[in-house]
Amino acid sequence: MPRPPVPPEIEAFLREPNPAVVATLRADGSPHSVATWYDWVDGLVLLNMDASRVRLGHLRRDPRVSLTVLDKDSWYTHVTLTGVVERLVEDTELADIDRLALRYQGNPFRNRAAQRVSAWMRPESWYRWD
Amino acid sequence: MPRPPVPPEIEAFLREPNPAVVATLRADGSPHSVATWYDWVDGLVLLNMDASRVRLGHLRRDPRVSLTVLDKDSWYTHVTLTGVVERLVEDTELADIDRLALRYQGNPFRNRAAQRVSAWMRPESWYRWD
Repeated sequence: MPRPPVPPEIEAFLREPNPAVVATLRADGSPHSVATWYDWVDGLVLLNMDASRVRLGHLRRDPRVSLTVLDKDSWYTHVTLTGVVERLVEDTELADIDRLALRYQGNPFRNRAAQRVSAWMRPESWYRWD
Repeated sequence: MPRPPVPPEIEAFLREPNPAVVATLRADGSPHSVATWYDWVDGLVLLNMDASRVRLGHLRRDPRVSLTVLDKDSWYTHVTLTGVVERLVEDTELADIDRLALRYQGNPFRNRAAQRVSAWMRPESWYRWD
């Protein structure tokens, strides 16, 4: 799989509000996957999850992740990024989840009492299928 | 996460030709994910891949997988199955890949010289998000 930086056409693809699935590792090393919002910010992937999510524990234990992004118009085009979550940050002002909610739904995040955590993933390799 | 058997409404969802992403484990234990066709057959998940695929090696080494299935009409509904691939079978007659190609594209698989392998996954737990 090629290494970053990703070429401009892949960046353009990642900037679209596409469906995505993130894979993390459970405590026993087995894979866990779930659909997720994401954004592409200056070469990093922004993920954001409720502070109660089990996968936050997965990421604290083992930061290795894989993200598969499907073209929202035709999922036969898809890009996978693999890498590590290098920072977990409390999203105290809900700025990051608002960014994602605006990107995907056009409105700020509804639950203003939510406790959210952002995970910043640095891609180490990428691959595109068409 | 609940255990199988999955309830009828989840079975009905899995029978639709939905987009899906399968997560496997690399030799170093890191997660790998990729979009995939699948079918739901008598409580098992049928996956099928070219015999040259790296993830076939992943599955031979460690059969643990996670499959996230997105609703083809609205990906905010999604189901994740976790389990193990209990059988890898050479698809010598291309019957399994034809089944998948017919399901997703309405035609038999085009490349009749392909060497394909089927992976039969037995779900051990499932979860649905709406």
